[in-house]
Amino acid sequence: MDTMTSMTTAGRQNVLREDLPLPLCVLRDGALERNVARFQRYTESSGVLLCPHAKTAMSPALFGRQLAAGCWGLTFATCAQLQVARRHGVPRVFYANQLVGAADIRYVCGELRRDPGFDFYCLVDSVPGVELLAARVADADPGRPLSVLVEGGLAGGRCGVRDVETAVDVAQAVRAAGPRLALAGVEGFEGLAQSRDASRREADVRQFLGFMTRIAQTLDERGLFGALGTGPVLLSAGGSAFYDLVIEALKAVRLSQPHQVIVRSGCYLTQDWGLYARLLADLHQRTGSADPALEPALEVWAQVLSVPEPGMVILSAGRRDFGQEAGNPVALTHVRRGTAERRPLRGAGWQMTAVSDQHAHMTVPAGHGAEVGDLVALGPSHPCTTFDKWRVVQLVDDDYNIIEAIPTYF
Amino acid sequence: MDTMTSMTTAGRQNVLREDLPLPLCVLRDGALERNVARFQRYTESSGVLLCPHAKTAMSPALFGRQLAAGCWGLTFATCAQLQVARRHGVPRVFYANQLVGAADIRYVCGELRRDPGFDFYCLVDSVPGVELLAARVADADPGRPLSVLVEGGLAGGRCGVRDVETAVDVAQAVRAAGPRLALAGVEGFEGLAQSRDASRREADVRQFLGFMTRIAQTLDERGLFGALGTGPVLLSAGGSAFYDLVIEALKAVRLSQPHQVIVRSGCYLTQDWGLYARLLADLHQRTGSADPALEPALEVWAQVLSVPEPGMVILSAGRRDFGQEAGNPVALTHVRRGTAERRPLRGAGWQMTAVSDQHAHMTVPAGHGAEVGDLVALGPSHPCTTFDKWRVVQLVDDDYNIIEAIPTYF
Repeated sequence: MDTMTSMTTAGRQNVLREDLPLPLCVLRDGALERNVARFQRYTESSGVLLCPHAKTAMSPALFGRQLAAGCWGLTFATCAQLQVARRHGVPRVFYANQLVGAADIRYVCGELRRDPGFDFYCLVDSVPGVELLAARVADADPGRPLSVLVEGGLAGGRCGVRDVETAVDVAQAVRAAGPRLALAGVEGFEGLAQSRDASRREADVRQFLGFMTRIAQTLDERGLFGALGTGPVLLSAGGSAFYDLVIEALKAVRLSQPHQVIVRSGCYLTQDWGLYARLLADLHQRTGSADPALEPALEVWAQVLSVPEPGMVILSAGRRDFGQEAGNPVALTHVRRGTAERRPLRGAGWQMTAVSDQHAHMTVPAGHGAEVGDLVALGPSHPCTTFDKWRVVQLVDDDYNIIEAIPTYF
Repeated sequence: MDTMTSMTTAGRQNVLREDLPLPLCVLRDGALERNVARFQRYTESSGVLLCPHAKTAMSPALFGRQLAAGCWGLTFATCAQLQVARRHGVPRVFYANQLVGAADIRYVCGELRRDPGFDFYCLVDSVPGVELLAARVADADPGRPLSVLVEGGLAGGRCGVRDVETAVDVAQAVRAAGPRLALAGVEGFEGLAQSRDASRREADVRQFLGFMTRIAQTLDERGLFGALGTGPVLLSAGGSAFYDLVIEALKAVRLSQPHQVIVRSGCYLTQDWGLYARLLADLHQRTGSADPALEPALEVWAQVLSVPEPGMVILSAGRRDFGQEAGNPVALTHVRRGTAERRPLRGAGWQMTAVSDQHAHMTVPAGHGAEVGDLVALGPSHPCTTFDKWRVVQLVDDDYNIIEAIPTYF
């Protein structure tokens, strides 16, 4: 067995040795494993349920790690994503979206009918939407009520009711649609505040969570949640930016019946080198704690194709290989072709100044030391829009030996 | 047979009838077919070879249509793309990139050795790059010389030599690497000028084509191209923006031996509703002709999920479903749920003002008429970054019946 194991290790393909064509999207196993364990522990010790948004990586191998670590369920946002989840046996899905399409509703109802163990929740935000959903559920006959949460929205934001009165109307429409639909709770996505002015963000998030609280309390007072005995009222919010505020505000809600808080952060899995790195630093500062400690696990490895001018290096990865909408990736590491020596590039003055489909244009300082054929690791600024560029992500150990090729299903 | 055909048509899934979950990426068969035929005819009547960049759609079904229409070969830009092409039997590949990686070169040489009918061309732009390529080709032993073109580059641009002297050095290095490498011609990508100021673009492109001409003439004078009898010298440029200028300039080059011009436009296949629509209009104005007549063939169909505020409609497609780097898609068509009536939206004041991963936020005028569950077609502003969001594109007839699900291989 020892011999076989060491043979397997010795036989592994290695990124730095150029065993595979570059660019490659690489997931560092150690960091990933630590992030999964630490975030699970963080939510458990906070007394909330974790239902991570799995659209980030859309990788059943990673669904499995999150479920094995003990998360309550997984979150998805489209029917195509849900179909992947169900094909890979995910038992509980929080569908953090309005469920509207005829084919989508047929699919969900078919799954509910087929599998008594399938637990599913989706959102509603208007009376016409509830009526359409109820009619389509009646046609598709799932054999049990479909659980819905009223979505609270941010003014100028996305879906979701903008006032408590509309939330009551929607909840009453759900009640009127019984036994097709059952009201399970209240949902919101405070993360939309992320795009706003930094000085207003925290106040906006707190205000939004206050709005969700008022919805929940009003629906509770009106007796619009399911009867006692159908499980706790669910209050769910939480992207990857403000989950500390979500946990604090939604746990403090007082209702006439028990409630459970569900956070849906997805980016903790891999973090990043830009957007979520900054947001985690903000969170640590807000809470005065280093918990949860999360590490960036995702890298894109590319090759130097050309050094066509002084101060310019052209790499073999571009907008088809990493996301840019939260900023270009940062240069992490330089490896001289034919060696495994890693030279850190952070703070070395390398900057990605332009990007085309398959190339990154780096502005580099004099004495940059890069030659044609050298390898460069890039750190993406947003995991979601980097994962979705890849059908296979390479899980690697600390020496960049490939442990496993992990398929994605975008 | 007639019965069977009509049964098949009657049994076809339809986008407007919501037979499949939305969003869907839709390719209009009629427009596609006309574009393929018209662009092929345009290049033939211009006396140049067409080797379309196939990274746009990365769809073997579309490779097949282009090859069947008579194109000379297909262009790719990464080893992963090349592997898809070869697995699907593409016989001639113009690799419009530097070929650098160890695994990439092993793969290309293996294919050259395995298949005597495989015709392959790639680019070189530096003496160290040529030396690395020659050493790696020697190790991998393709059994015949690897054909390379010297890449001319634009100052401040991407790969490619910046002056004629370097081009000569590179060509001499290729000669010195014989019989591993053979110099087949000169390449450049004038399309980089596209991002520049509109008033300078045409002059920049002409200047760049002049630079390519001087490289070709100098290498010809120095006797650095392959001996007569090894085929014409190849001069290749041409993205999808300035192929008229490329054809004019490169056909006019005079060398001591015959030459062939190869254009590599890829976006003619589907055009778009933004970037390439404008560039085609510029081209028609420049040439004073309506040739080639090309139509947008690509659409993304989404559903109204919510009308949460007056003047705001939220659709079920976002940055995971279409490209944005050349501008957000435009709203094309509105279909009332449950009907097949198409209402044109161009000029109706619908604007995509924000986008998240799975949602488009539309600002719409009063009386917009959209209700939850309605369908909306979006016209992408750039085909490349829309195709790459999809693993399957739906080929549809004029009534949006699905003819075929076309897989992509990004």
